[in-house]
Amino acid sequence: MKYRLKNLLTYCAVIGCTGLLAGPTYGGTEALLDLLKVLRDRGTISQDEFEILRNAAMADEEEAIAEQEQFKKEVAETGQASVKVKTDYKGLTVESTDGAFEFNVGGRIQADANFFDEDESDLGSGAEIRRARLKAQGTMWRIWDYKLQVDFAEGESEINDAYIRFNGLKPVSFTLGHQKVPISLQSMTSSNWQVFQERALIDGFLDNEDIGRRRLGLNVGTHGNNWTVNGGFFGEGTDDAGKSNENWGVAGRVTFAPIAEATRVVHVGGAAYYRNFEHDPELAFSNRPEAHIAGTRLVNTGVIPEADELLLLGGELSTVWGSFHAQGEYLRAEVGRENGLPEPDFDGWYFQAGYFLTGESRNYEVDKGRYNRVIPKGIVGQGGWGAWEIAFRYSTIDLEDNGFLGGEEDNFTVGLNWWATPSILFRANYIRAEPDPNSEATSLGGIDEDVNIYTLRGQIVF
Amino acid sequence: MKYRLKNLLTYCAVIGCTGLLAGPTYGGTEALLDLLKVLRDRGTISQDEFEILRNAAMADEEEAIAEQEQFKKEVAETGQASVKVKTDYKGLTVESTDGAFEFNVGGRIQADANFFDEDESDLGSGAEIRRARLKAQGTMWRIWDYKLQVDFAEGESEINDAYIRFNGLKPVSFTLGHQKVPISLQSMTSSNWQVFQERALIDGFLDNEDIGRRRLGLNVGTHGNNWTVNGGFFGEGTDDAGKSNENWGVAGRVTFAPIAEATRVVHVGGAAYYRNFEHDPELAFSNRPEAHIAGTRLVNTGVIPEADELLLLGGELSTVWGSFHAQGEYLRAEVGRENGLPEPDFDGWYFQAGYFLTGESRNYEVDKGRYNRVIPKGIVGQGGWGAWEIAFRYSTIDLEDNGFLGGEEDNFTVGLNWWATPSILFRANYIRAEPDPNSEATSLGGIDEDVNIYTLRGQIVF
Amino acid sequence: MKYRLKNLLTYCAVIGCTGLLAGPTYGGTEALLDLLKVLRDRGTISQDEFEILRNAAMADEEEAIAEQEQFKKEVAETGQASVKVKTDYKGLTVESTDGAFEFNVGGRIQADANFFDEDESDLGSGAEIRRARLKAQGTMWRIWDYKLQVDFAEGESEINDAYIRFNGLKPVSFTLGHQKVPISLQSMTSSNWQVFQERALIDGFLDNEDIGRRRLGLNVGTHGNNWTVNGGFFGEGTDDAGKSNENWGVAGRVTFAPIAEATRVVHVGGAAYYRNFEHDPELAFSNRPEAHIAGTRLVNTGVIPEADELLLLGGELSTVWGSFHAQGEYLRAEVGRENGLPEPDFDGWYFQAGYFLTGESRNYEVDKGRYNRVIPKGIVGQGGWGAWEIAFRYSTIDLEDNGFLGGEEDNFTVGLNWWATPSILFRANYIRAEPDPNSEATSLGGIDEDVNIYTLRGQIVF
Repeated sequence: MKYRLKNLLTYCAVIGCTGLLAGPTYGGTEALLDLLKVLRDRGTISQDEFEILRNAAMADEEEAIAEQEQFKKEVAETGQASVKVKTDYKGLTVESTDGAFEFNVGGRIQADANFFDEDESDLGSGAEIRRARLKAQGTMWRIWDYKLQVDFAEGESEINDAYIRFNGLKPVSFTLGHQKVPISLQSMTSSNWQVFQERALIDGFLDNEDIGRRRLGLNVGTHGNNWTVNGGFFGEGTDDAGKSNENWGVAGRVTFAPIAEATRVVHVGGAAYYRNFEHDPELAFSNRPEAHIAGTRLVNTGVIPEADELLLLGGELSTVWGSFHAQGEYLRAEVGRENGLPEPDFDGWYFQAGYFLTGESRNYEVDKGRYNRVIPKGIVGQGGWGAWEIAFRYSTIDLEDNGFLGGEEDNFTVGLNWWATPSILFRANYIRAEPDPNSEATSLGGIDEDVNIYTLRGQIVF
Repeated sequence: MKYRLKNLLTYCAVIGCTGLLAGPTYGGTEALLDLLKVLRDRGTISQDEFEILRNAAMADEEEAIAEQEQFKKEVAETGQASVKVKTDYKGLTVESTDGAFEFNVGGRIQADANFFDEDESDLGSGAEIRRARLKAQGTMWRIWDYKLQVDFAEGESEINDAYIRFNGLKPVSFTLGHQKVPISLQSMTSSNWQVFQERALIDGFLDNEDIGRRRLGLNVGTHGNNWTVNGGFFGEGTDDAGKSNENWGVAGRVTFAPIAEATRVVHVGGAAYYRNFEHDPELAFSNRPEAHIAGTRLVNTGVIPEADELLLLGGELSTVWGSFHAQGEYLRAEVGRENGLPEPDFDGWYFQAGYFLTGESRNYEVDKGRYNRVIPKGIVGQGGWGAWEIAFRYSTIDLEDNGFLGGEEDNFTVGLNWWATPSILFRANYIRAEPDPNSEATSLGGIDEDVNIYTLRGQIVF
Repeated sequence: MKYRLKNLLTYCAVIGCTGLLAGPTYGGTEALLDLLKVLRDRGTISQDEFEILRNAAMADEEEAIAEQEQFKKEVAETGQASVKVKTDYKGLTVESTDGAFEFNVGGRIQADANFFDEDESDLGSGAEIRRARLKAQGTMWRIWDYKLQVDFAEGESEINDAYIRFNGLKPVSFTLGHQKVPISLQSMTSSNWQVFQERALIDGFLDNEDIGRRRLGLNVGTHGNNWTVNGGFFGEGTDDAGKSNENWGVAGRVTFAPIAEATRVVHVGGAAYYRNFEHDPELAFSNRPEAHIAGTRLVNTGVIPEADELLLLGGELSTVWGSFHAQGEYLRAEVGRENGLPEPDFDGWYFQAGYFLTGESRNYEVDKGRYNRVIPKGIVGQGGWGAWEIAFRYSTIDLEDNGFLGGEEDNFTVGLNWWATPSILFRANYIRAEPDPNSEATSLGGIDEDVNIYTLRGQIVF
């Protein structure tokens, strides 16, 4: 009985049946059989009568079981009732009982405010919807995944993810479409689960219309118990949809996690991304001071004339040790130019550390080589107080080399994160941004004074 | 048995079980127990045999009940089957059985046509998709709400609502994000449930890129049985996403409904909205003649130089008396300017009345201080003819004061609404628009002749 | 029992019950009744005892059945459990058990690459997300349908379908909103189910901002077993949302299918589309060489001055014969101009044929007079290899007439389609595009050399 129960629970958990568990039914039959035996042994009924009655009872039971099998079959065929429907902290998910099909609708809202404390310059304090996304994703016939995610925050829609993934040759997967280029731990980690409100300065090497965090291409990925390898060929982004766009790139990322436990992680990663710009050499590097509303960039190379190729090289280190976590990255951009013009190399790095006052650990996804959702021990709305995290980051970028004076910048950030629920975050950051006073970036609208920045965010991921 | 049934029905209505109701099971057992008693009393079986057989039967029954309890527990834990799924006139809604989680997907389509009958001028008759929206909204852990609604009608996406709401301190709620500024009954009432195709002329004081029906901010609201109070701090709208935007505002609205029954309502409301424009004084007031396709505005102040602040003051009165309803609003805009420049005050008001020929009443939401969906007595598709409503409106706005000659306009509107179902509306409006012939608005492309306007709308809300 | 089972299965397939099938229950009771009979006949129990016990057992059974009926009633009333939820190759669908309400969320992703092999000119090889769409559609109260579909591929959102449909007078349906104008088999057939990556050259007569595949209007349609008739009045597209737009058109399409079987189809169709351009005569005709990424158009009339009306006339022929299918269309554009200016007529046609190597047939929708989704015999992910299709197309357009030298173009295409699943397609096309060397289109950026084009697509429809 217990064994049958186990199976049935799995099955029933899905279609919400319980009749299959009608133990007493069989019980009724079994008890009846017991009685028949007794009556036979007492001679109250004859062996023949016993057998007839027993067979009748057994037949009834078999018929019932047959009906239940038949019903299970019909359900499986029609598929009508054979789905799991879930609404939880991940929007709405519907999954077919055999797991072959899944469909999810969700999204995110990030509402930000930035306050700039500057003297000579005006970075423009204010508020904005940083990200407002809707997505639909799913699985078909078990081996086909897809995802379409659109961002509406910039006042016009922008495709983030738009891809088809083939998982038919596990553990190898092939992803075709608009997707993240495999480089940089902070870039691979969703904006939802960053430790700080904005990624560190070196993200300017990627989050750049000429290079792009996401590109349209084909990525091949695989992973083991504690490592991942990804490599792909990438065209341009969707901003250029419909227009001629012959620029292309290749990128690869490798991660290794000698330790990858729930509360203990050591992560090492490296990546390279080559892009060719023959067809519109408009390459430029700059970034905001880790505050997205800033109207001015403190570092900016301006357009690098006749740049025709770029090589990005990145190294990653990260660890989780109980409630403590640390992460550092180095990113280097080597620009190639035509006609033997001088070729600048720019670079930068950051180091950050954080601690959960409430005992949680940062959530490492070993098969992706990135971090994921924080699950608070106590949830606000269920009597808990959420997860409280404090963090520090030092971040620097150097855009001065070989005659290019795009400036240098050092940022010091302290942050407080309140993960009220697995889906809801409120955070505050204080950033001390120190640009290089001798930078030529000022001539590009940059500024050369130190700035104190206060940022706030309310976020829900559904 | 009956009592157990009651519980189970509640439970089963959700997971679609029925086996829990397998009365005959117990019946089978009970009847068997009856028989055993008889056989014992007849001496056909001994007391010992009786007890053994009875215990066997009882044990079976208890095991079955235990299994069912166990299953209920598993369902509750996995949550997999424990949802209500509904598709009705509100798109798709999934709710967890404990009510802690809810997710809804829906939207609206409004297809309009405007015909202008003018002599000298050309307002440009035509058709448009007035609104085409998709939304996802929900509840998490009972006390957290969210809503993301995007409009696609203007040929590019525009965020309407994008907020997180905390309901953990009922009846007080905190709403963070892009949301309606609490002022004006016609503005707080969804465009879906307006009596006329467009809001009255004074909506031009709000539906203005410098002021905005919706703004990014934090609103605190509460309500009693017949009153509401809302107040908040508001930055700019999402149109300015990513750009510096230091303008800000504070707004508050109070409503009181001495009578708030299903078919009898008296509503009184007042609101104030202060905005500061130091950082881009581009303030201007104008509006279309209550016909959105109009290529020309009949009233228009043009930019008011050096305007640096604005105070909007509004008063609301509304009533529902059986099938009759009436509503009036006054809105006043007091402009502040720098350097002691003359400061104009503009204002306007409207009065409207309507009547349901088919006996419905306008649907007042007392806890929001606004009107909601009309529910027809008869539904087209279920043998009914929908709700038929006639309405009249007088609307006026005065944009002339203190040297500013933005014009005056008086509009007379008659409307016919056919609420075919709770989600589907077809409407026709005739508007007589009479601008002030001496207005300077003409110099801004306005016109000074009276215009006859015919408007049509087909609408579905899902 | 069997009969009851049948009913219950229908019912249960929906609410996922199975307890209703608790045969053994009744079995238990039945077997018990058998035993009682025997015991009575043996005189072990008296006729009175027999009747009491039998009635007790029967009563239990009746109570249980009553409870089940009661439960069925409650479910039907609350409607809570009474939905079918499906996730399959059509995204997510929820349907009320009575079929009166249905809601579907889905979309599509098309990721393309184009490679141009040219000598003098540069058409700009590259990649793009060709289409990325989300849609919500449904049915309310059985007779009301709606659909809202938005495309995000162009880097900003664009409304495709946004309409309400009334089906209350079957087989006549009224569709109000933004929808396809009824003309041209290849235009009426979804981009998902085209035989080639892009529609044939003559689609340039429709896919034109002045004319439009989709327009805002009212269409009336009906159909019989093997014919369809559609006609409507159409304003402008949603690109012009909010701006004056007095241009209008009327269109009608008739299709007839003397043979319309699963694997044998003969389709004949004809259509006419008149548009009036009095209010902004900017009419021009051109098209890309059946490769959407092409930065240059090989045929282009440029703006036709003072064009004030247009008549499109189209004829369609198509057949399915087992795994073979063929299709041809002719489209003619007759331009009317003001002030007796010479009025050009342009035209073009295509013929295509295809064959399924794996035995499928093209899927004809007789009630819509168009083609629909290909269902492979074997599905990749279920041990199959999908459907493999080869196809050929000759396509031509002539934009030279009456003094206008927009050029002529002949395209020869061979295509390979791999329908891996009913939702997933990978395709490759080779196109030989031969523009008219003497065309004036070159003066409009067109080119006069023959071009070899290679195109690829990955597509998922969910």
